[in-house]
Amino acid sequence: MGKAETTRAVVLVSGGLDSAVCLAAARADGLACHCLSIDYGQRHRHELTAAAHIASLLGACEHVVLTLDLRAFGGSSLTADIPVPRAQEHPGATNVIPSTYVPARNLVFLSLAVAFAETRGASRVVIGANAVDYSGYPDCRPAFINAFERTANLATKAGAHAADKGQSAFAIHAPLVDLSKAEIIRLGHRLGVDFSLTHSCYDPTPDGAACGVCESCVLRSRGFAAAGVADPTRYTRTRGADT
Amino acid sequence: MGKAETTRAVVLVSGGLDSAVCLAAARADGLACHCLSIDYGQRHRHELTAAAHIASLLGACEHVVLTLDLRAFGGSSLTADIPVPRAQEHPGATNVIPSTYVPARNLVFLSLAVAFAETRGASRVVIGANAVDYSGYPDCRPAFINAFERTANLATKAGAHAADKGQSAFAIHAPLVDLSKAEIIRLGHRLGVDFSLTHSCYDPTPDGAACGVCESCVLRSRGFAAAGVADPTRYTRTRGADT
Repeated sequence: MGKAETTRAVVLVSGGLDSAVCLAAARADGLACHCLSIDYGQRHRHELTAAAHIASLLGACEHVVLTLDLRAFGGSSLTADIPVPRAQEHPGATNVIPSTYVPARNLVFLSLAVAFAETRGASRVVIGANAVDYSGYPDCRPAFINAFERTANLATKAGAHAADKGQSAFAIHAPLVDLSKAEIIRLGHRLGVDFSLTHSCYDPTPDGAACGVCESCVLRSRGFAAAGVADPTRYTRTRGADT
Repeated sequence: MGKAETTRAVVLVSGGLDSAVCLAAARADGLACHCLSIDYGQRHRHELTAAAHIASLLGACEHVVLTLDLRAFGGSSLTADIPVPRAQEHPGATNVIPSTYVPARNLVFLSLAVAFAETRGASRVVIGANAVDYSGYPDCRPAFINAFERTANLATKAGAHAADKGQSAFAIHAPLVDLSKAEIIRLGHRLGVDFSLTHSCYDPTPDGAACGVCESCVLRSRGFAAAGVADPTRYTRTRGADT
């Protein structure tokens, strides 16, 4: 029932905290949001249930879960039989890319988001990539996001038609790219995000409780502390409790 | 059993003529070839059977078929309930992108190929994209291929590590990009490709016979005629027979 002139966006929603804040911000900007989640065989599949709740509660006009079994490739502790590392295994080693890196994941996910955007007439693609607390993932850097945007416009029918008029069809937005985890949490708090719906842990228990010791849990927990916002997460352990 | 120094390549193999010639050329160059096919819900699924035969006969060291159901997005006559157009419906209209365009398909497929390449230690990704008889698909243009190569190196762990040494991790090869269909067929003929294994039709009969009237069939048939090579394809109709 949206107005014809409403700008449409595809928002990649993982079920995590960052993408929930992106969706809330896009909704606050008045965008019609088509959410996309990828069931890629991730160890932390519980996040897909979280993604569905988040998309629904934040007023997405659509939520598509695409199955793409990246276990066929392996190469990551999130998709293969490789243990998830604890955060403290490489403290301060910011140039080390951990085993939780999934080969070319954001390249693949953004490509799928652009394909989805083209079929829905969406001109914006939103991703919660973050270059500050980014664990050294190369596909969270602004240089990658910028290069991808140019490539996406060359790759598509919509991009080719827009180029004929000296325009571009797709903008890739990574609104969190320069924010710290604490800043992201404060932004989400102001936008009214219910963080209890979001899921960050790479290695949850079968009922979805967070491990408390993987890098993602530690970044999350520290972010809430630094933001001065109550952390609603149920952690089964806390870092340092058993080391 | 390959020598450690053998260069590894990922070759996107669709089951069609162009990618079979790419694989034959890569094998003739001595590359160890990891083939990747995507089961994306395409109408012409028969091509996946062809892809498996081609990979096996041409000596691929691996063939992975990844399932990615692009019907969740739709927007193409290859993945949605939209009729496949006949070639003659837009004769000579080279700037019209037909309904067989699958949104951002080569962007998605190349991204998956790079992800696969990174897990296999492959430094080359080969795609049979062709800008001459390319039906107006934007993702077959050299400008897209070049932009994608740069993006892929920024997107990956291997690319980040190579950049530290002033190198790049991945080269995207589109060896057919400037060839006509007849030139591709002559190249394949010289390399001994058994074209009867390859499948081009967008709208085959259930037992895999080619329709003879879609754009892909017409390009193929004309290419064989222009190359002076016998066309082994079984067409159920020929263009003009019933118009």
